[in-house]
Amino acid sequence: MNFNKVLDNVSIYEAGKPIELVVREYGINPKDIIKLASNENPYGTSPKVTKKIQEIAGNMFVYPDDSMYELKDALSNKFEVKPSNVIVGSGSDQILEFCVHAKCDKDSKVLMSKTTFAMYEIYAKQTGSSVIKTVDDEHNLEQFSAMYKEHGADIIFLCLPNNPLGECLDKDDVYTFLETIDKDTLVVVDGAYQEYASFKDEKKRINPKDLINTFPNCIYLGTFSKAYALGGMRVGYGIAQEDIIKTLYKLRAPFNITTLTLAAAIEALKDEEFVDKCIALNFEEMNRYEEYAEQKGFDYIDSYTNFITLKFGDLFSSKEVAQNLLELGVIVRDLTGYGVNAIRITIGSKEQNTKVFEILDEVLEKLK
Amino acid sequence: MNFNKVLDNVSIYEAGKPIELVVREYGINPKDIIKLASNENPYGTSPKVTKKIQEIAGNMFVYPDDSMYELKDALSNKFEVKPSNVIVGSGSDQILEFCVHAKCDKDSKVLMSKTTFAMYEIYAKQTGSSVIKTVDDEHNLEQFSAMYKEHGADIIFLCLPNNPLGECLDKDDVYTFLETIDKDTLVVVDGAYQEYASFKDEKKRINPKDLINTFPNCIYLGTFSKAYALGGMRVGYGIAQEDIIKTLYKLRAPFNITTLTLAAAIEALKDEEFVDKCIALNFEEMNRYEEYAEQKGFDYIDSYTNFITLKFGDLFSSKEVAQNLLELGVIVRDLTGYGVNAIRITIGSKEQNTKVFEILDEVLEKLK
Repeated sequence: MNFNKVLDNVSIYEAGKPIELVVREYGINPKDIIKLASNENPYGTSPKVTKKIQEIAGNMFVYPDDSMYELKDALSNKFEVKPSNVIVGSGSDQILEFCVHAKCDKDSKVLMSKTTFAMYEIYAKQTGSSVIKTVDDEHNLEQFSAMYKEHGADIIFLCLPNNPLGECLDKDDVYTFLETIDKDTLVVVDGAYQEYASFKDEKKRINPKDLINTFPNCIYLGTFSKAYALGGMRVGYGIAQEDIIKTLYKLRAPFNITTLTLAAAIEALKDEEFVDKCIALNFEEMNRYEEYAEQKGFDYIDSYTNFITLKFGDLFSSKEVAQNLLELGVIVRDLTGYGVNAIRITIGSKEQNTKVFEILDEVLEKLK
Repeated sequence: MNFNKVLDNVSIYEAGKPIELVVREYGINPKDIIKLASNENPYGTSPKVTKKIQEIAGNMFVYPDDSMYELKDALSNKFEVKPSNVIVGSGSDQILEFCVHAKCDKDSKVLMSKTTFAMYEIYAKQTGSSVIKTVDDEHNLEQFSAMYKEHGADIIFLCLPNNPLGECLDKDDVYTFLETIDKDTLVVVDGAYQEYASFKDEKKRINPKDLINTFPNCIYLGTFSKAYALGGMRVGYGIAQEDIIKTLYKLRAPFNITTLTLAAAIEALKDEEFVDKCIALNFEEMNRYEEYAEQKGFDYIDSYTNFITLKFGDLFSSKEVAQNLLELGVIVRDLTGYGVNAIRITIGSKEQNTKVFEILDEVLEKLK
């Protein structure tokens, strides 16, 4: 059968390996596996959210309130915008997809950093758009500007902070850049890890309301998958001016999040204390990774997220390190596929990290 | 901001009104509301599935196994196909979306029945495709053949049984029709209510394995939203030959169902007894609606689903009936928007239906 020609060019995203797969492939006891490959919150779901879901589990047969009245109300209060400035997606990932389909077809151009969230490129290619990338691995606004001047773009993706590398641009630099962008170019500010970045350094904080009021061509994306510890529930949101939100709604299928997801997100927003605690612990533990890397003599990227990227330079092959860790039950993300000799490790809990250092010692000794 | 021109033509799907909205708008106590608008299973979720979800609710922070190994294994055993013949979506709805994007762009044609599941048209228009419809409300294969001969089609949608009307073509007639269809036309056989149809009449049964082996250009869609009582969890599946499944995978975002959804679907497949019981009760209760309609002198469509469509002819306006029912706490679906003077009522539980007849009596008396 013949299919849409634009798909010839589309590759499939490789998700972090799940625990189930490592159990199947390597016969390791699930209890002994440490999964630090998908930047999940290692402190688990908020107990208050878990309790809520246990209470209402019997409602699984009922479709969710598709207006998402209560969740949009809570989000619009949190961010001081109107509910009509908010759209909820199955992960902020789905809002990315809506953005691409709202703006792009096979004649469109999409601009992004060389090493950034893989789905930007995959979604762009699903529409047949051309993907333009800057040269440096990390976000470089001079290169963004030069590329934009040369090629133009229908969409620009800024990942602030950037996944999978962890770096983050300053808000002031981003704003200076945005002033140079045409009002018909949609700029997607992906804030999936913003809670972490703004905790570490106030200069990184992007305020969605201020962003969309200053630059009506911007959309801010947030997620419940990271600091809010609901990665498995698939829920994120976009905040933008109404003309953008209305168009994205045309691409949203009804019931795009589950009944339990809707309740979990509403409940999670009531427990910000849990979120704050997780973020503080994250950076305490990140210090230990930085010390570890310095001690071993390899580089790392200063991270504004809940993961750290360790660069091996000429010392080791990240592919080998990741594979050896996997066989010992530690799942991390090898970045070879992104053209970087590095691994990305989610900052785990204290106990997990202690064990990771032990096993990493063992692996590095073996590969030396 | 300018958006993709094809979206100018896209309207937004209107979902059945949720209980929350009726509470907000009419101040009715949630306990007094009977929602029979979205064809949810009135017998609730299987207690075994609910128990499972309560046990694992704490896993909400973890992404699901994106390979969906266990669920695909269970589905492929049930349908006697290979896991590589299966794709899982956020509702079978999402598989519809994949199918359209896999085949269509603005030069494509999509053929469907005049009054059928609204998302077929919405997804088609998202790609800018032309939508061709048969003339009769109910599926009419002669008209499908004539339209296909005249216009051709990249995709044909067959809804077996048909939502929102409830009628169902015989399998033999469908097969005779499929023999005349070009191998490059993708035929989507939407079996969302097949469990009901094949229970009522063996002649309606479509066997997915036989379908895709006989007609490699067909995809069969199934869902957990109806007989399996997981509407709120958003999970369905497509069964097709590998070349089709592989292409659809290019359009699937990672983690397209939730961690709890994955577990719920796996568990639901273990409790077929619950499903069988629900379906038997459904048709017992449907008899009462048929009797009620005959008694009141209005028409209904012989239904192979878990809903019934009552046609008011010149007797009443379905819009008025639906609105009056709503104000008394009974949510049904008015089909005026589909160009039919009828309401679609999900077959509720015995208690619900008894109350519906009482309230409907009151409304019809008022509107007489």
